[in-house]
Amino acid sequence: MRYFTAGESHGPQLTAIIEGLPAQMDLTAEMINGDLFRRQGGHGRGRRMQIEKDQVIISSGVRHGKTIGSPVTLTVVNDDWKHWTAIMGVEPLAEGVNPEDVKRQISRPRPGHADLVGGMKYGHRDLRNVLERSSARETTMRVAIGAVAKQFLSELDIHTVSHVTEIGGVETDPSTYAGLGVAELRACIEQDPVYCADSEASKQMVQAIDDIKKKGDTLGGVVEVIIEGCPPGIGSYVQFDRKMDGKLAGAMMSINAFKGVEIGLGFEMAKISGSEVHDEIMWDEEQGYYRKSNRLGGLEGGMTTGMPIVIRGVMKPIPTLYKPLESVDINTKEVFAATIERSDPCAVPAASVVAEHVIATEMAKAIMDEFRSDNMVDLKRDIDTYRRSVKEF
Amino acid sequence: MRYFTAGESHGPQLTAIIEGLPAQMDLTAEMINGDLFRRQGGHGRGRRMQIEKDQVIISSGVRHGKTIGSPVTLTVVNDDWKHWTAIMGVEPLAEGVNPEDVKRQISRPRPGHADLVGGMKYGHRDLRNVLERSSARETTMRVAIGAVAKQFLSELDIHTVSHVTEIGGVETDPSTYAGLGVAELRACIEQDPVYCADSEASKQMVQAIDDIKKKGDTLGGVVEVIIEGCPPGIGSYVQFDRKMDGKLAGAMMSINAFKGVEIGLGFEMAKISGSEVHDEIMWDEEQGYYRKSNRLGGLEGGMTTGMPIVIRGVMKPIPTLYKPLESVDINTKEVFAATIERSDPCAVPAASVVAEHVIATEMAKAIMDEFRSDNMVDLKRDIDTYRRSVKEF
Amino acid sequence: MRYFTAGESHGPQLTAIIEGLPAQMDLTAEMINGDLFRRQGGHGRGRRMQIEKDQVIISSGVRHGKTIGSPVTLTVVNDDWKHWTAIMGVEPLAEGVNPEDVKRQISRPRPGHADLVGGMKYGHRDLRNVLERSSARETTMRVAIGAVAKQFLSELDIHTVSHVTEIGGVETDPSTYAGLGVAELRACIEQDPVYCADSEASKQMVQAIDDIKKKGDTLGGVVEVIIEGCPPGIGSYVQFDRKMDGKLAGAMMSINAFKGVEIGLGFEMAKISGSEVHDEIMWDEEQGYYRKSNRLGGLEGGMTTGMPIVIRGVMKPIPTLYKPLESVDINTKEVFAATIERSDPCAVPAASVVAEHVIATEMAKAIMDEFRSDNMVDLKRDIDTYRRSVKEF
Amino acid sequence: MRYFTAGESHGPQLTAIIEGLPAQMDLTAEMINGDLFRRQGGHGRGRRMQIEKDQVIISSGVRHGKTIGSPVTLTVVNDDWKHWTAIMGVEPLAEGVNPEDVKRQISRPRPGHADLVGGMKYGHRDLRNVLERSSARETTMRVAIGAVAKQFLSELDIHTVSHVTEIGGVETDPSTYAGLGVAELRACIEQDPVYCADSEASKQMVQAIDDIKKKGDTLGGVVEVIIEGCPPGIGSYVQFDRKMDGKLAGAMMSINAFKGVEIGLGFEMAKISGSEVHDEIMWDEEQGYYRKSNRLGGLEGGMTTGMPIVIRGVMKPIPTLYKPLESVDINTKEVFAATIERSDPCAVPAASVVAEHVIATEMAKAIMDEFRSDNMVDLKRDIDTYRRSVKEF
Repeated sequence: MRYFTAGESHGPQLTAIIEGLPAQMDLTAEMINGDLFRRQGGHGRGRRMQIEKDQVIISSGVRHGKTIGSPVTLTVVNDDWKHWTAIMGVEPLAEGVNPEDVKRQISRPRPGHADLVGGMKYGHRDLRNVLERSSARETTMRVAIGAVAKQFLSELDIHTVSHVTEIGGVETDPSTYAGLGVAELRACIEQDPVYCADSEASKQMVQAIDDIKKKGDTLGGVVEVIIEGCPPGIGSYVQFDRKMDGKLAGAMMSINAFKGVEIGLGFEMAKISGSEVHDEIMWDEEQGYYRKSNRLGGLEGGMTTGMPIVIRGVMKPIPTLYKPLESVDINTKEVFAATIERSDPCAVPAASVVAEHVIATEMAKAIMDEFRSDNMVDLKRDIDTYRRSVKEF
Repeated sequence: MRYFTAGESHGPQLTAIIEGLPAQMDLTAEMINGDLFRRQGGHGRGRRMQIEKDQVIISSGVRHGKTIGSPVTLTVVNDDWKHWTAIMGVEPLAEGVNPEDVKRQISRPRPGHADLVGGMKYGHRDLRNVLERSSARETTMRVAIGAVAKQFLSELDIHTVSHVTEIGGVETDPSTYAGLGVAELRACIEQDPVYCADSEASKQMVQAIDDIKKKGDTLGGVVEVIIEGCPPGIGSYVQFDRKMDGKLAGAMMSINAFKGVEIGLGFEMAKISGSEVHDEIMWDEEQGYYRKSNRLGGLEGGMTTGMPIVIRGVMKPIPTLYKPLESVDINTKEVFAATIERSDPCAVPAASVVAEHVIATEMAKAIMDEFRSDNMVDLKRDIDTYRRSVKEF
Repeated sequence: MRYFTAGESHGPQLTAIIEGLPAQMDLTAEMINGDLFRRQGGHGRGRRMQIEKDQVIISSGVRHGKTIGSPVTLTVVNDDWKHWTAIMGVEPLAEGVNPEDVKRQISRPRPGHADLVGGMKYGHRDLRNVLERSSARETTMRVAIGAVAKQFLSELDIHTVSHVTEIGGVETDPSTYAGLGVAELRACIEQDPVYCADSEASKQMVQAIDDIKKKGDTLGGVVEVIIEGCPPGIGSYVQFDRKMDGKLAGAMMSINAFKGVEIGLGFEMAKISGSEVHDEIMWDEEQGYYRKSNRLGGLEGGMTTGMPIVIRGVMKPIPTLYKPLESVDINTKEVFAATIERSDPCAVPAASVVAEHVIATEMAKAIMDEFRSDNMVDLKRDIDTYRRSVKEF
Repeated sequence: MRYFTAGESHGPQLTAIIEGLPAQMDLTAEMINGDLFRRQGGHGRGRRMQIEKDQVIISSGVRHGKTIGSPVTLTVVNDDWKHWTAIMGVEPLAEGVNPEDVKRQISRPRPGHADLVGGMKYGHRDLRNVLERSSARETTMRVAIGAVAKQFLSELDIHTVSHVTEIGGVETDPSTYAGLGVAELRACIEQDPVYCADSEASKQMVQAIDDIKKKGDTLGGVVEVIIEGCPPGIGSYVQFDRKMDGKLAGAMMSINAFKGVEIGLGFEMAKISGSEVHDEIMWDEEQGYYRKSNRLGGLEGGMTTGMPIVIRGVMKPIPTLYKPLESVDINTKEVFAATIERSDPCAVPAASVVAEHVIATEMAKAIMDEFRSDNMVDLKRDIDTYRRSVKEF
């Protein structure tokens, strides 16, 4: 599976092409729209989330509700486009129009954004040409692609969930949701305002968001993604770039505003001894091999172990602030207080949705790449065969 | 730049091919051997480090001390190979020899290693076929490749260093080395037994390692890599898989035993507010644009900012323990105490060397991929031109 | 530069995403539509070409007539879609509808098409699921992408043309257009009914097409693509997969119905001696190095030489015939005379347009991959510098 | 499967790393050496072929005659290296040695070689730095890799052969070997001096080579590669870069001195009508689907059809001639008669061996990429299952 996303934040539409999906897989717009909706939710989102009601259109690769093996095109139209045609129009400016008179030009780079460096790299004096693409609006399509990936995984009995474990220093107590499976965890967080599985922590997170909003500041946090049902042996130790943990970490870190990622006990492992870290290997007739614990988060030697994948990422506080930062105008070189383009006090719940979909995409891709994935019927049979052989090893 | 490593831990040799290096770059075996030596050092390494005296042989792509643009082959011969020819021989077993009589067969998978899952995936009943390749011995070649990358970077005035910031819960006090550049930091750690820049913490780390060794247990830790002098704009926000932070995180996490990675303030960002996180943009005639701080670790919007790259990774304690873990024999399904193949109480200092080289490799690759990198003479000129244009932006 | 195409022949639209284009490049829909129009022309095209009036819509990556560095989305809407919504609908069939009652199902694979093997591979019993994507309709988007590539190349003073050199055994006399440059050659063929530069041969080709049409049969032919102005040294000999001739040949052969490709004298080289084959090297102050002849078609040692690229491809006669071929119904296994889906007697002129665009795409991609291609301003400067250094070598 | 080759023509050794081979596959040096030997043979080879007696050493990825899933390293040592250490030494020149005094420097580019353009691209004033890598000596490793690929294919009952069909205008009469399978064809050519299956044509080819040698000139020719037993459906029509014919053509054209490639009837298809081109589809209980003919050379719609793959390539006459071509010294700009480095009058038989191995490599790669190829045991089972399902389609 390969894919690209395209589209500017205030352009006419966002588009994605997914190449290499198996035929015979169920796929409808509805399967995607629910996830797009969740990405737009969560306590701490601002006004724009109300403007956009993201709905996907599928315009290739699916016939009568089933993939046919050819590339799938996904489009999300920007309902607000009519207000942006002059500013973001594709066609050349009419003769006589001075490019410098185009409205909403930006010469003031915001710290914490791609604005300044993007301008340098691509040679843009109007930094709008940068921020329109570097905007987290792009994650809409990563969620759409991830929703397709999740449908793929679910047909193989692999299930994913994400939840928020920390916002602005408020951490969940993992014992409140320890031992819950993906379905139970999903039930826990579905109605939670910050997609958090610990209802006590959730209340404090909501409070922390409300408090920071009043101060005109923002908060970051940590999200956790869990994948259940993955067969062992996805990824490989034989070459550096085939390690599944490397791929998942790379994917997680490629999400806008993410600055760290950890698997299983993660950074905690610097504090404890080896005897507290590893997962002893067990076996019984019914289950085959399994582990007593899952401290390594379902990955050993660059491969899935068959235990749930547990991976966390940290999102920095959104850089556009009510309380602005100092920056420099690229034309005048004058110091100014950085432009505010958007202003959610906390986007961590939404980021948890993005993270789940990005990780699901990477896992789906890995399975498609390793197995013959021309069509779902054969693939299900092959995965079953493989699962059986692994159990009987 | 592309590259592969090859070789088993007890095979005749380790090999790497690096494809796509510019011509006209200085390269000698000596430039690599120093780094190989450092990888073998650090307080907490066991016996095998004394056996191996890793020396690289260059056998292609270099002529009279200069690269010529063709692929570079690196080899590290295994001095101990003579003791392993029967066990690890390439040629088929002599007729009449029962494969099950081959010495040193392994049917007992170690928790925390690739052994069990590797056996399942590749169909090996002798798990030696797994562990010979999944062994951290492979990192020798990643260091060798990274040493070449560092030479490349240094010709562009880009410099790297790594140091240990935590072992077994003993953390450095960053204020002891705050403000030090790469060269100064390197001087600090060069003679330190655990490659640590805080001499007080270093003493405690050594003590912690000695203590854990007596208990027969092991310790993990955190390493930090710093790259200074990188021009802004390496990487891009325009497509998910071109983000430099994603690439660096993926590379770091692909190192054996690494379970987490963070950039700049990293996971700390979940605890503080936006106003404490971002790096204000400054400008003056002499330097051009710069930042007041470097909390984002030199990466914004998936691109280098021109500030030092600061990235950390966590290494789990080595899984082979004096105090063994429970596991299951794959033939008899009997429970046993896991095989001990190696036994360093702490490999974090060595891991810091590996991390530096892996990150240097990724950065060198990114620069070669973005710029015309046929030869060093043109590349230096182009990088100079680019640096100037960025300054004058 | 990377790209994907998507879309079924009778689906709602065709889509392409192009990733990695430089910013600051001129781009409008008009620059693409002319080429789409030419692809639909040429003597020997049937009815469908009149139905489709292909027009591209750009919906990302371009602002006010200039690329901005982010991915470019191209869409060609299918005007005939309203007649196909029931047959090709994306949504699941309404409850109670028997999938076997869907109209225009196909169980009869056509020889010379992907139908049968595609059905086997993807598990389709309705072969429409194959032919909708394997149709040459897809080449619309390869032309659209190629038009973008040609715009890129033209900004670097690199120009392309294609012409037909053989149809159904009627060959051009190369002496009639020997020595013509790209612009002159383009002028020659622009009004020619079969895009042929030899007006005498053109008449015979038209006659041959008319004759074969009466017989209900089809004709193939040979097309030639020429690229002028390419700097020397694109591609490399250092690794097998970096050779430019390999890339161009692979691209040409990936066009629907192409079965052969040759560069320069091509297969003629099996018949003549070495002294008649190579291109002697000359030099003068004004031009720098040049060649006395161009028998090798602008490629030596896997690299462009600076002489015009000359590459030809052969297209087989279109397999859907008035005079049908025997095949087997996949359900009943009964022999039948193969289904006719389309019926142009000769698509070679159109194929010449496709070939030009596919080759232009590959060349543009190679230049973008080798040079820093973030923005056109810097790239033009870097190509100029390189051209100068090559001249002064 | 991925791979790189490395090594200079007169360097210490040639090396290849093959990444992604399945475990459990038989592999010994002997399986490779026979093919290396054939590459060195054929009427028309000169002196150097007697110097080199290529023997491969396997130094990773194989244990006791079986692959273990980790990368395989292949080395061919240069027996003549002792005579080249001063000229091609890796270490920097001793102090005081003037680089310009190094022996065997080359400032005179040969037409038809990479010399001039390679010098420009990589910035080499001593063109030996180019020709050492651009030399056809590199094809030694492509044959070695291809021998591994052939072993892989043969374990799946897929077999390959190559033979010479034209040298210097002497063409074989295909009717003399029509209907022969791979094994029979191999028997035909094994003892033939020019690897030709038509013994009459072979005699004339030998004569043509002897004649041209006397004149001090060289001859090119055409080679044909056949792959038998490939399952249908390898490759795909869904995206341009997944078409198997494109991949094979790209691979063939990447061989040194190849200037054309055609599949099935190839360029002949420009001369005949559609009714003479396609392969009618048949079915019977025993065989499943098959074709009445194989004019399309086993590829339709970018996929294998299950019929034998038939692909031909044309090799230009070797450019280094006894009768030299005009060129220009890059230092003095004086015209000279081009340097002779090597002087085989005809290397087409050897090229047929290279072509077979390059095509086998590409086919093996495609199968490994599409199927789960972790180990041969599972892969054989999966290919069997697939072959059965295709037959029952």
